[in-house]
Amino acid sequence: MARAAHSPRLAPIPASLPDAVPFVGPETLERLRGAPFRARLGANENGFGPSHAALAAMAAALPGIWKYGDPTSHDLRAALALHHGVTPEHVVVGEGIDALLGLAVRLFVGPGDPVVTSDGGYPTFVYHVAGFGGVLHKVPYRDDRQDPEALIATVARTGARLVYLCNPDNPMGGWLEPGRIDTALAGLPDDCLLLLDEAYGEFAPALPRIDPDDPRVLRLRTFSKAYGMAGARIGYALGTPSVIRAFDRVRNHFGVNAIAQAGALAALQDGDWLDRTIGQVAAARDRIAAIARDNGLTPLPSATNFVAIDCGADGALARAVLSRLDADGIFVRMPWVAPQDRCIRVSCGPEAELDALADALPRALAAARTDIA
Amino acid sequence: MARAAHSPRLAPIPASLPDAVPFVGPETLERLRGAPFRARLGANENGFGPSHAALAAMAAALPGIWKYGDPTSHDLRAALALHHGVTPEHVVVGEGIDALLGLAVRLFVGPGDPVVTSDGGYPTFVYHVAGFGGVLHKVPYRDDRQDPEALIATVARTGARLVYLCNPDNPMGGWLEPGRIDTALAGLPDDCLLLLDEAYGEFAPALPRIDPDDPRVLRLRTFSKAYGMAGARIGYALGTPSVIRAFDRVRNHFGVNAIAQAGALAALQDGDWLDRTIGQVAAARDRIAAIARDNGLTPLPSATNFVAIDCGADGALARAVLSRLDADGIFVRMPWVAPQDRCIRVSCGPEAELDALADALPRALAAARTDIA
Repeated sequence: MARAAHSPRLAPIPASLPDAVPFVGPETLERLRGAPFRARLGANENGFGPSHAALAAMAAALPGIWKYGDPTSHDLRAALALHHGVTPEHVVVGEGIDALLGLAVRLFVGPGDPVVTSDGGYPTFVYHVAGFGGVLHKVPYRDDRQDPEALIATVARTGARLVYLCNPDNPMGGWLEPGRIDTALAGLPDDCLLLLDEAYGEFAPALPRIDPDDPRVLRLRTFSKAYGMAGARIGYALGTPSVIRAFDRVRNHFGVNAIAQAGALAALQDGDWLDRTIGQVAAARDRIAAIARDNGLTPLPSATNFVAIDCGADGALARAVLSRLDADGIFVRMPWVAPQDRCIRVSCGPEAELDALADALPRALAAARTDIA
Repeated sequence: MARAAHSPRLAPIPASLPDAVPFVGPETLERLRGAPFRARLGANENGFGPSHAALAAMAAALPGIWKYGDPTSHDLRAALALHHGVTPEHVVVGEGIDALLGLAVRLFVGPGDPVVTSDGGYPTFVYHVAGFGGVLHKVPYRDDRQDPEALIATVARTGARLVYLCNPDNPMGGWLEPGRIDTALAGLPDDCLLLLDEAYGEFAPALPRIDPDDPRVLRLRTFSKAYGMAGARIGYALGTPSVIRAFDRVRNHFGVNAIAQAGALAALQDGDWLDRTIGQVAAARDRIAAIARDNGLTPLPSATNFVAIDCGADGALARAVLSRLDADGIFVRMPWVAPQDRCIRVSCGPEAELDALADALPRALAAARTDIA
């Protein structure tokens, strides 16, 4: 043990970081409770699953898994470019939005540089900013929605290098009308990059039209949500070529799974399946909202594949509801700052899982109210 | 275009990096030459492919791809711990060794910190060190092998935080007898971490026994080589729990593909397939060596799934041979510094691909000699 005192030392930034992780996975929770969940409605996964064409493409690609995936994701980038009306040079593919967020922070944030996000926004972005030594400036939600005007004002005040906006929003589910993003962009300084996280973009009634050559905006998209391929770890960023090219300086060039590339390409081309999913998700949102109302709770408007449910009191009650649901086999999550933490967040899923929620919620609510009394 | 002058600026370290990438993938080369390769023998992939049990496990896991993979890789880590006689706390799973090398550099190397590697060693490690602002000290190969004594002496001289050693070695294929690693370890300072890249470890006649609680050593292993799953992007590191835990501060927790986790678990448990592969690889090494000798060239001893072939002159000839092989549909690579760059590097693969090499090499060699004459 004498050696421990002289073990290799962490570099200064990693040494300053906490051991905490952004999210505990449902498998860990299942091991803690000693039984599987009967409803997996906490991670905004898409239980309606991927396109059968995508599954077939992945199955067909499996025997070729001895080969590294194409490090340029050439075919997928070409298809994405066509899909978005840009060139392949406007697209970089990565191991999910999480990885791309990390790379974007690494590229544009040096130690001590200011970064702006919403207080209660995506924890993995916060994790990356801390991980590269950035200094976070957090802007409160306004009426349970992100506040782009305040975000931009904070950018101006702090000289931030990066600002994060998730639209539609996680964890509250709301969306910003395209005009509000346009207005925010008009005020964004030229030397600040807006990370516009559109993980839930396919579910939004409308998205802003953004000049693909505006060097101030990087849009992030994923196959994890509407396309039902969270386990594949594949997402992409859209931006002007000079910004996209910068990712080549730091990314893990051979990092994207070859099967995921094949699946994403097929998924992108199966528009019918996407339409079907969007319909199923809309129906599931309505069902979750109805379940909430049946229990005297208030569902918040959602443009995503989840619904935040206002439990009607504070974070203590919502945490107790979450805990009781967990004990009853229902995996959900919740926002992490007040006053949004008065809600639980329920992902859309198949009918049987929502039936399980409908069954469990009255009991969980009653027990939770007793717990905190 | 006025905007470009004020675009978001890169942070200092990324701004200092070149646009060059460590490796050009074979798909890009195929697009450049306008036709697919008939022999894919350049990336040290394993054309004998993964275990049928692994393929079956991945096929069975595909419908569950709507779920994020377990961020703790619990089941795989438990199996790896059993396999290596350690605890799961000694194991971290990542998106291939490339990703784990990047995280290790990020954890232990701050800007300006010295790092030691072999001159001509793995370019992706060099890429990561530059990417986090480390200062590389390169040690020449000795007799076409890495020189652990000189590496350790350079650590002592520079106060390096990290030293990289690949055993068996890429790109030359040699290996170090366990005693030489033991000796090197005896001289390794307590505050330096040895990254022992054992990507090709399964092919080695013997590997050193390393105290799993030695905080100075991190062993890196992969499912890309002997297990034939390069496209899955899954590897792992073995180290003392305090070092392994540090990865949780910076890694992409949900970054490992769910299907890859299932496949790796099944592959690990199919020892018969691994034995079969090791036999096929040994036979292919012999065949490649015979092809080299048939052409008057010298195959170097290899403990990996590839063979470095000394083309008998300098880098110019080897580059010309490589180029001629490429034009003839044979993908191989070569070492990148002199005098090792007198060689081409041929990966083991199925008989038909080696037949194609045997067919093409005489022509390539003759043409290359003319090219440089």
